Amino acid sequence: MLDNKEQNLTPLDKLGEFGLIKHLTESIEIHNESTVKGIGDDAAVLNLEGNETVVSTDMLVEGVHFNLAYVPLKHLGYKSVMVNLSDIYAMNAVPSQILVSVAVSNRFPVEALDELYEGIKIACKKYNVDLIGGDTTSSTSGLILSITAIGSAKKENLTYRNGAGENDLLVVSGDLGGAFLGLQVLERENEVFKVNPNTQPDLAEYDYIVGRQLKPEAGKHIVELLEKLEVKPTSMIDISDGLSSEILHLSEQSGYGFKIYEEKIPLDPMVIKTAEEFGINPITCALNGGEDYELLFTISQADFPKIKGNPNFTVIGHTTEQNAENYLILQGSESAVPLTAQGWNSFDDE
Amino acid sequence: MLDNKEQNLTPLDKLGEFGLIKHLTESIEIHNESTVKGIGDDAAVLNLEGNETVVSTDMLVEGVHFNLAYVPLKHLGYKSVMVNLSDIYAMNAVPSQILVSVAVSNRFPVEALDELYEGIKIACKKYNVDLIGGDTTSSTSGLILSITAIGSAKKENLTYRNGAGENDLLVVSGDLGGAFLGLQVLERENEVFKVNPNTQPDLAEYDYIVGRQLKPEAGKHIVELLEKLEVKPTSMIDISDGLSSEILHLSEQSGYGFKIYEEKIPLDPMVIKTAEEFGINPITCALNGGEDYELLFTISQADFPKIKGNPNFTVIGHTTEQNAENYLILQGSESAVPLTAQGWNSFDDE
Repeated sequence: MLDNKEQNLTPLDKLGEFGLIKHLTESIEIHNESTVKGIGDDAAVLNLEGNETVVSTDMLVEGVHFNLAYVPLKHLGYKSVMVNLSDIYAMNAVPSQILVSVAVSNRFPVEALDELYEGIKIACKKYNVDLIGGDTTSSTSGLILSITAIGSAKKENLTYRNGAGENDLLVVSGDLGGAFLGLQVLERENEVFKVNPNTQPDLAEYDYIVGRQLKPEAGKHIVELLEKLEVKPTSMIDISDGLSSEILHLSEQSGYGFKIYEEKIPLDPMVIKTAEEFGINPITCALNGGEDYELLFTISQADFPKIKGNPNFTVIGHTTEQNAENYLILQGSESAVPLTAQGWNSFDDE
Repeated sequence: MLDNKEQNLTPLDKLGEFGLIKHLTESIEIHNESTVKGIGDDAAVLNLEGNETVVSTDMLVEGVHFNLAYVPLKHLGYKSVMVNLSDIYAMNAVPSQILVSVAVSNRFPVEALDELYEGIKIACKKYNVDLIGGDTTSSTSGLILSITAIGSAKKENLTYRNGAGENDLLVVSGDLGGAFLGLQVLERENEVFKVNPNTQPDLAEYDYIVGRQLKPEAGKHIVELLEKLEVKPTSMIDISDGLSSEILHLSEQSGYGFKIYEEKIPLDPMVIKTAEEFGINPITCALNGGEDYELLFTISQADFPKIKGNPNFTVIGHTTEQNAENYLILQGSESAVPLTAQGWNSFDDE
């Protein structure tokens, strides 16, 4: 019944991930006053009384989001929690609970799930989050993880994707491109291992970027730091798909164009060195690589003195005008390249 | 890395579904005061202020929970919402939001997902629930759905699985066994269709039980009726795995034994007739079939006059003593058969 027997059926990859979500959700109606924000941001916001409740969910599929040949299950558990908490922090909120659903095929022994849950529990403990429910079921092939995170924030502290104003500064936490290059290293070592199973991969010289891929951290310290510095971002998003893609989200939702400067994009020396080794421009890794789980946010210029010189933050650009295009200004020139989303898309036929 | 290279690895089906959940979750710690109830009930309860927030999640996997050869996607969408809302109602709470994550392989066109979401939206509208988020991704094979439902209730109205007292009455809503027999009919017709694709299945004479399988309803009317009648159950659970399995949960969590009476178990005439046709005892369908999504609850004897004669409710038994066994008393005899859980288990190798 699901074969393409009829004409005019649209293949999934035609719409792309964001297009598909939009297509599926645009006619959804909101029925409850308690629904402050539904689909369309990093997380949904509920006003169930007093503080606002923030909820977000993500699904991770073996063979699509991760390869168990080089991703240890403990790391997978940890990372899958981080991916979800990151969405809560991107609302300037604090996560407090998660629910975890797991589907696994019979090829997994109990001990494999123990490893997975070990990583989940370590993440919960470190981030002071309670695992409060979930579902465990079998799958016909592979491992699928679905996690829902719940958090809260004072209404006045919540930060949406749509709040940027004219000439706001664009700020990013940490550095970018490492998670993508860590993945390239892991995939290369896996290819070597497949050819010669007696080789032991030496990942020591890539420790930072491999760690960025296997064990990312969510933006808890950044949200705490912003509160301490009394900086309320005008908009915020987490970097899961790549800097370009996230900037386009902030632009689309606020209506403002963005201009970013190549020389300002924060890169770790190991990112530069490894990108060179792979023959890739490190800026491309930052723009399109994704999975860095840093926070990207806009602040009003009045707040600039509060973050100036802070090593956790880098101002990489600013908003321009309503309905303007988004540009990358190349280093050492006046050349402006339009920003395009070439981030990760799970429906691509790669 | 996941092959059984080591000795002493435990296959998943050794523990069974409930055993596995217990195994995985028994060492989980609670860190937040706001976590009133974590894993171990139909839903988790959060006290985020004022009303209690109730959250539950379920995952549905193609080839495990449903067969798209005879389950229309619109019905699947509707049912997957019902499965989750049922858990919220089983807390004596009212659902208000859901999050839906979907993983699909490229064999599904957009129109297939439209059908799925159509069913989800119909369910949301009918039950006054907002779809507030989710995730959409690709899978390497088949369709996987993960839904999280959120609801709320006054603290004093929440009904847990563990609250039954001595000599409480055991009550069930609606009738049982229909969903299981509906599935048998659908599977039989599917086998006929595979042999001769020109046959058109005539399901009209099985409409009620096929409807119970394909389009179950969650217990909204029951929770509303209980409130109107001013009956606060002492414990409650929804019937997803089968009557026996659910009674064993109520017994284990309260510590009381239960006694139920074969002649009291509510059966629709079509259930009796179809069970006969398949050569199955209809009571077995009710005890072990599952997926009826009726509510099973205990009330104190003082509340009996409030529900007496109400066609929505059937008293099928009562609790006995602390640490007593659970028994089915056979019709027309004094014989007592121990209740055992033979409900559906997704890790069984069937």
